[in-house]
Amino acid sequence: MTQQVTHQGLDEAVRQSPKKWVYLFSEGNATMRNLLGGKGAGVSEMTNAGLPVPPGFTITTEACNAYYEHQKQFPLGTWDQVLAALHIIETQTGKGFGSRENPLLVSVRSGAKFSMPGMMDTVLNLGINDETVQGLIALTNDERFAYDAYRRFIQMFSKIVLDTDPHDFELVLEHYKNNAGVLTDADIPASDLKQIVGEFKQIAERQSGEPFPTDVFQQLHKAIEAVFSSWNNKRAIDYRNFNRIPHNLGTAVNIQSMVFGNMGNTSGTGVAFTRNPATGEKVLYGEYLLNAQGEDVVAGIRTPSPISRLQQDLPGVYEQFKEIANRLEQHYHDIQDLEFTVEQGRLYMLQTRSAKRNAGAAVKVAVDMVEEGLITPEEAVKRVEPSQVYQLLLPRFEDASKRRAEAEGRLLAKGLNASPGAAYGKAIFDADRAEALGKAGTPVVLVRPETSPDDVHGMLVARGILTARGGATSHAAVVARGLGLPCVAGCEEIRVHEAEHLFRVVGSDVVIHEGEDISIDGATGEVFAGMIKTVEADFANETDLKKLLDWADMFRHLGVWANADYPRDAQRAVAFGAQGIGLCRTEHMFMEPERLPIVQKMILAPTYEERQSALDQLLPFQRSDFKGIFEAMVNPRTGEGYPVVIRLIDPPLHEFLPSYEDLLVEVTRLETLGGHEAELKEKTALLEAIGAIREMNPMLGLRGCRLGLTFPEINVMQTRAILEAAAELAAQGKKLHPKIMIPLVGHVNELKEVRRQLQTVADEIAEKSGGRIDYKFGTMIELPRAALTADKIAREADFFSFGTNDLTQTTFGFSRDDAEGKFLLHYVDGLDVPGLKDKVKILPSNPFQTLDREGVGQLIQMAVEKGRSVNPHLELGICGEHGGDPDSIEFCSEIGLDYVSCSPFRVPIARLAAAQAALSHAEKDR
Amino acid sequence: MTQQVTHQGLDEAVRQSPKKWVYLFSEGNATMRNLLGGKGAGVSEMTNAGLPVPPGFTITTEACNAYYEHQKQFPLGTWDQVLAALHIIETQTGKGFGSRENPLLVSVRSGAKFSMPGMMDTVLNLGINDETVQGLIALTNDERFAYDAYRRFIQMFSKIVLDTDPHDFELVLEHYKNNAGVLTDADIPASDLKQIVGEFKQIAERQSGEPFPTDVFQQLHKAIEAVFSSWNNKRAIDYRNFNRIPHNLGTAVNIQSMVFGNMGNTSGTGVAFTRNPATGEKVLYGEYLLNAQGEDVVAGIRTPSPISRLQQDLPGVYEQFKEIANRLEQHYHDIQDLEFTVEQGRLYMLQTRSAKRNAGAAVKVAVDMVEEGLITPEEAVKRVEPSQVYQLLLPRFEDASKRRAEAEGRLLAKGLNASPGAAYGKAIFDADRAEALGKAGTPVVLVRPETSPDDVHGMLVARGILTARGGATSHAAVVARGLGLPCVAGCEEIRVHEAEHLFRVVGSDVVIHEGEDISIDGATGEVFAGMIKTVEADFANETDLKKLLDWADMFRHLGVWANADYPRDAQRAVAFGAQGIGLCRTEHMFMEPERLPIVQKMILAPTYEERQSALDQLLPFQRSDFKGIFEAMVNPRTGEGYPVVIRLIDPPLHEFLPSYEDLLVEVTRLETLGGHEAELKEKTALLEAIGAIREMNPMLGLRGCRLGLTFPEINVMQTRAILEAAAELAAQGKKLHPKIMIPLVGHVNELKEVRRQLQTVADEIAEKSGGRIDYKFGTMIELPRAALTADKIAREADFFSFGTNDLTQTTFGFSRDDAEGKFLLHYVDGLDVPGLKDKVKILPSNPFQTLDREGVGQLIQMAVEKGRSVNPHLELGICGEHGGDPDSIEFCSEIGLDYVSCSPFRVPIARLAAAQAALSHAEKDR
Repeated sequence: MTQQVTHQGLDEAVRQSPKKWVYLFSEGNATMRNLLGGKGAGVSEMTNAGLPVPPGFTITTEACNAYYEHQKQFPLGTWDQVLAALHIIETQTGKGFGSRENPLLVSVRSGAKFSMPGMMDTVLNLGINDETVQGLIALTNDERFAYDAYRRFIQMFSKIVLDTDPHDFELVLEHYKNNAGVLTDADIPASDLKQIVGEFKQIAERQSGEPFPTDVFQQLHKAIEAVFSSWNNKRAIDYRNFNRIPHNLGTAVNIQSMVFGNMGNTSGTGVAFTRNPATGEKVLYGEYLLNAQGEDVVAGIRTPSPISRLQQDLPGVYEQFKEIANRLEQHYHDIQDLEFTVEQGRLYMLQTRSAKRNAGAAVKVAVDMVEEGLITPEEAVKRVEPSQVYQLLLPRFEDASKRRAEAEGRLLAKGLNASPGAAYGKAIFDADRAEALGKAGTPVVLVRPETSPDDVHGMLVARGILTARGGATSHAAVVARGLGLPCVAGCEEIRVHEAEHLFRVVGSDVVIHEGEDISIDGATGEVFAGMIKTVEADFANETDLKKLLDWADMFRHLGVWANADYPRDAQRAVAFGAQGIGLCRTEHMFMEPERLPIVQKMILAPTYEERQSALDQLLPFQRSDFKGIFEAMVNPRTGEGYPVVIRLIDPPLHEFLPSYEDLLVEVTRLETLGGHEAELKEKTALLEAIGAIREMNPMLGLRGCRLGLTFPEINVMQTRAILEAAAELAAQGKKLHPKIMIPLVGHVNELKEVRRQLQTVADEIAEKSGGRIDYKFGTMIELPRAALTADKIAREADFFSFGTNDLTQTTFGFSRDDAEGKFLLHYVDGLDVPGLKDKVKILPSNPFQTLDREGVGQLIQMAVEKGRSVNPHLELGICGEHGGDPDSIEFCSEIGLDYVSCSPFRVPIARLAAAQAALSHAEKDR
Repeated sequence: MTQQVTHQGLDEAVRQSPKKWVYLFSEGNATMRNLLGGKGAGVSEMTNAGLPVPPGFTITTEACNAYYEHQKQFPLGTWDQVLAALHIIETQTGKGFGSRENPLLVSVRSGAKFSMPGMMDTVLNLGINDETVQGLIALTNDERFAYDAYRRFIQMFSKIVLDTDPHDFELVLEHYKNNAGVLTDADIPASDLKQIVGEFKQIAERQSGEPFPTDVFQQLHKAIEAVFSSWNNKRAIDYRNFNRIPHNLGTAVNIQSMVFGNMGNTSGTGVAFTRNPATGEKVLYGEYLLNAQGEDVVAGIRTPSPISRLQQDLPGVYEQFKEIANRLEQHYHDIQDLEFTVEQGRLYMLQTRSAKRNAGAAVKVAVDMVEEGLITPEEAVKRVEPSQVYQLLLPRFEDASKRRAEAEGRLLAKGLNASPGAAYGKAIFDADRAEALGKAGTPVVLVRPETSPDDVHGMLVARGILTARGGATSHAAVVARGLGLPCVAGCEEIRVHEAEHLFRVVGSDVVIHEGEDISIDGATGEVFAGMIKTVEADFANETDLKKLLDWADMFRHLGVWANADYPRDAQRAVAFGAQGIGLCRTEHMFMEPERLPIVQKMILAPTYEERQSALDQLLPFQRSDFKGIFEAMVNPRTGEGYPVVIRLIDPPLHEFLPSYEDLLVEVTRLETLGGHEAELKEKTALLEAIGAIREMNPMLGLRGCRLGLTFPEINVMQTRAILEAAAELAAQGKKLHPKIMIPLVGHVNELKEVRRQLQTVADEIAEKSGGRIDYKFGTMIELPRAALTADKIAREADFFSFGTNDLTQTTFGFSRDDAEGKFLLHYVDGLDVPGLKDKVKILPSNPFQTLDREGVGQLIQMAVEKGRSVNPHLELGICGEHGGDPDSIEFCSEIGLDYVSCSPFRVPIARLAAAQAALSHAEKDR
């Protein structure tokens, strides 16, 4: 090789330019992703590791950016450097670019820092024209091969560089295949291919308005420009927007000498993974085709062989490949996704990159590699996506069963993937009937137009939820996610007819009646008729996952608690590794069928005495509820209990009452009919009582601590229930830490007064039990004013819990119930605007799913700072839905909260996300 | 006088004390209000001005505070200083405290920095006992006078110092009067009085458990202690809370030698004002009684004479008093409220203080005094309460007519004084009928259970509003204040029966049927049957007020704009001195009867085309609306227009649609009846359409710019109407400054996109009209997120207008519609809490009336700073109801807003309040 000499040419070109725009593969390495893109850095690293990589070079991302800054002109010196580098490649390969005798062909590929699949295709075989094709024929002695390469080149170049319609080319190929009576492109005779090349050039000229470039340098120049331009095509911009990739990174361009896998039976091409990306098993996994180019593998005309067969076909190559695969995995400390080509018995590596893998594989490989000593536990923790952990824990359709259902045409409709997991069961259209069947052990899928708190008892026993209306944060979706239940929401392709107990599939005759089996997949939004078997996850047996999460626990600073309203949820949360209950809502307890009538009596009581008597009836229920939760959170061995934050009554009272409108209809009907006087009188009185309680905007009305201040006796009953339950267990030697949370505080005086009222009750019970209960009082920060005046509020609170659902509602002025169905999803997905082709996105993401750092986050940060400034012992957590969202968890970790609290099923996610956040800060601090 | 010598005694006592606790009147002056209280400073000033003041001294407020700091013990040296000062008084008067020969009697009065009327009564005649009463008899030769003074003292001392029940004393007096066959206390014979004194002492002993103190020094000590204690009695604390007076000021105690107005016909007592406090007329105004003590004037048994009569009764005294009154007014530069006593032909001044005066007098006196050279315009501006200006501009009941109504027992009920002013008219129970009658010229008072936007067309033509439900910020109250209409809201003493067109007065048989006359006073909350004539204010003729406001304009930095939706309002606003329209709501225009059906068609349109066609019909209406407003805001002489901020459509759409529930009732009725198929079908379709639009929390739903982004064509039509109207007038040479306001922005992208859509339309029209329209785009800051991200938003806005109504709703999480009726008024007035005697106040004031500086204000300040930091030309105003509230205006001035915008009727208030705010900052800066 004459590297010395030729490097000089490039060095000289660089010297005469403002900047080095071009790097030979031998000049780059894996750390240069910013400059060379992922692909360029990968082949450079392989080149320098001494692996067989066809020589080539990379034009930098900086050149791309400069190209845009200079009105789409190549920045000064770029072309000279390209030519110099190309000359080096010529020297290295012993071939000449545009040479009639021994022509060098190259591939031209884009390659940005982050993989952007489909952003731009590859141009192969560049450098071919009527003259060089002759050289190719002479060299390979294979006219068919040469003309086939030529026509492929024209097709690709036309599509990608000249932006012509590929259809015309296909028509020509069809025509020749018909004439020759053959079925595949590969069977077209060489003589026909020569004619096809001619016709292709004419098509390209007709469509582009210019003769097809025969000058190989012109071909190269145009191909590079096309790659640069592709960075800002709509597809690429959309992709970056969606994946939050910055728009100013630019793409690199890789120019690499071609090798051919289609030069006979000692040639071939394939792809392989260093381990099985579906299972994580440590075995070379992939496939290849002999005598083929990359395209042919994709085309699916011939069936590729599994990679293990290569051992028989080309044993030397196989051994070499296996050794290289192993080296690359050792080198990158991760499963690699490899592309290779064998040209007449010689192996060339074309690409290596980290392999995409499914959830199970991700966890297994990370843990295996730690045990193999390949990576550290820290790296393992960083490498698994929190969402993969979630997927692992959910039931999913058994593959065969689902494939059968698809084959049988049983896919009925698709809705929003509101809560992942798969389920089957009898379609039931009413919560009461669902409850009855569910309790009897029948698998049930609750199907409703939409759900409300009235349906919760049915949801609690259902295997899955299907609604026709409502968005990703509708009641159904939120409750389902909280319960870890699969949910398909807003499935507009079905019409639910409640009264008839059936749903119809829009645009078809299909009707599903109550009691018929259906299956739903909340991860995809699919709804099937009939049963599809599911495979259950079992956390206790997910040993790899448990190992990974144990490592995660070593790194995280954030505590991970769970939101749980029932002992069953609390048990599940502890099993998933929760270290406390961050939110126990007491109102769900009020909804239970045997209690609701008492609750309603309490609400509608005309006097204090009648209200108090209803509350006296509720006290034992609540006490036993809390006892159940506390017991679930006590370590049976040590008797030590995790903290439990219990929120006092919060929702507007109408949620516990019959629907005003249903009653209005009944009363109107009775009035119109006449007679029924006693019933009419009773119903009218109830209608009026509920009417007096009704609110225009219940979300901003009489709820939270306002309710407690208006009816202090409710709070007193709840506090009594909490502490009496704690006292009973404390008497058994258990150590409990109940935390009483006062909701919806906006002014410190609210908290001060409620606390004053309850402190007396609390002190009395605590004293009676000999001071063995460690209870605290705190508040939810869920109104902007609470955050703004957190310094005042913190003086009266032992802890803050950020209620980010409500805080998001009030900070944005969005009612979730209304916003999601009406405009919020359009805000996130993009609005249709007259006169604009593209949708206009208003919000980067749904602020009810991912915490809005700019607005809501600003308030939280303010509250953290103000709160800690006056009360350094203030305990700080978050209990909104965001507590289970990795991006939001990162924020919580950044601002130094003590814990996040999320639904039990998200606890493993949160443990991992919290660890990743801590590791990422540590890195930034380095 | 032996001042020299006796001063030494006090000086010596002070030297031996840690502090000077006692000041002779001759040692104090008017600037020492903090130390000596208002009364002490006043008499000191008079003493030093050489006026005839009975000698005395003041115990300082510091002594009071020290008393509380030392477990309610007199601070060291206090008593010694009191004795020394008393000795000086003895010397000055030639009398002896406790002397049997020539007894000195004193009065003991509290006197804090700020007048707190009724906090503690006065103890007169202190120093009397069985022995000194003999001296008094000997000196005056009037046993009756002496024993009357004695029994009065026992009564007062018992009530105030010993805290006994005054009723028992009254019983004794009744008994003696019956026995003697006389009617008044003054006619009880001297011999009986002597016995009464004996019985009084027994009563006092029985009630207090101790003998009535005969030692005069003990009397004095106890009286001083009682005054100190009175500072922290409940009445005083409540008063200070209500009037926002700090609790740590303490009260001073004034001890003054008694003079007696009841020593014959050359004695007397009276009160007078240096000018008429009802009219401001510059004439001595007041009344007096000969041979009487202060009590007798108050008791009302004898009719006092007007002060002018004193010229005949005691000409020398009258001249001296007149001269003193004049001197005091000159001295204090303000009308004085004077108390005097004449003892045997000798005039003594007992008190001088600034006189309370009514609105008209306040303005007239302030202006007169400037013209007399007594005060500066600046002082005049500082002296008038903004609320007085408002009162001046409202119609009020004619005095005689109201007195007649009261005498005739026509006062029916009292409700909340929701919007001041008085009105009479026919009671009408429906907005449609009110509108019909009102347009025909009949005076109408609209009476409703409560009002909603559906009633606005009726409110627009009514003279006044009366509602049975709803608080001070209910819909009725807010709209009425906006319109400057009298309103009595939440009048729970009436029951409105809509269907029967009548209201009943609770607890009586009185029924008012539709069409009967009623009269309401929104300043007092009174509701009368029948007509009470009103007196209209005429701003154009209020020359004094106009002068005062012109001076105010010289001092203020804040612009004062008005909220006006109709040309009529805009004209009124300009007449009141508004310099622009800060908020023109366009939705009221949609509510007009001939437009509403088109608006409904637009809202319910199933296709873009049908919506566009309805909008095309609305365009000419809106254009002429805006033209009217613009014309009202153009100076007819110069053609120069004031700026007009027009808000694009804001409210949730359901506000324009028929009530869902009414329709539900109709549909149910039709269904139950059967038949009526066509009607049922139509109504059902409408019900479903409205049902689809309905929201759980409309306040936080599809409204504001969300509506504009969902249906851009509405915004486009409105922008077109605004700018086409402006263009028509510009073509006539008028210079217009329309400002288009985009409401409810929470994320900068909303503003950016709406502005982008409208800019095209705007540019097109502006270009057509030759660039003669100076239009701007801006936004309302009415969501916490907008304030938090104001730096982002300000880059896309030419102006910000703080919508503090909505900002208060979202920051607190209060829906006005719900909060006020349910809990907010209790939050402000105090909650009843079981086990507590006193109500618990949660909020210092209603945040919808007075801006909550701590929370909402913090957000505004943040937005001002962030906004200006990126856009120094950003124009900043406020257009919530707070724009007309003096306290909130002070805040706006403090944080440097450019203008406040308020309802037209509040413009004069705002001008004055803004000037006062500016002057108050200037003082602070000094």
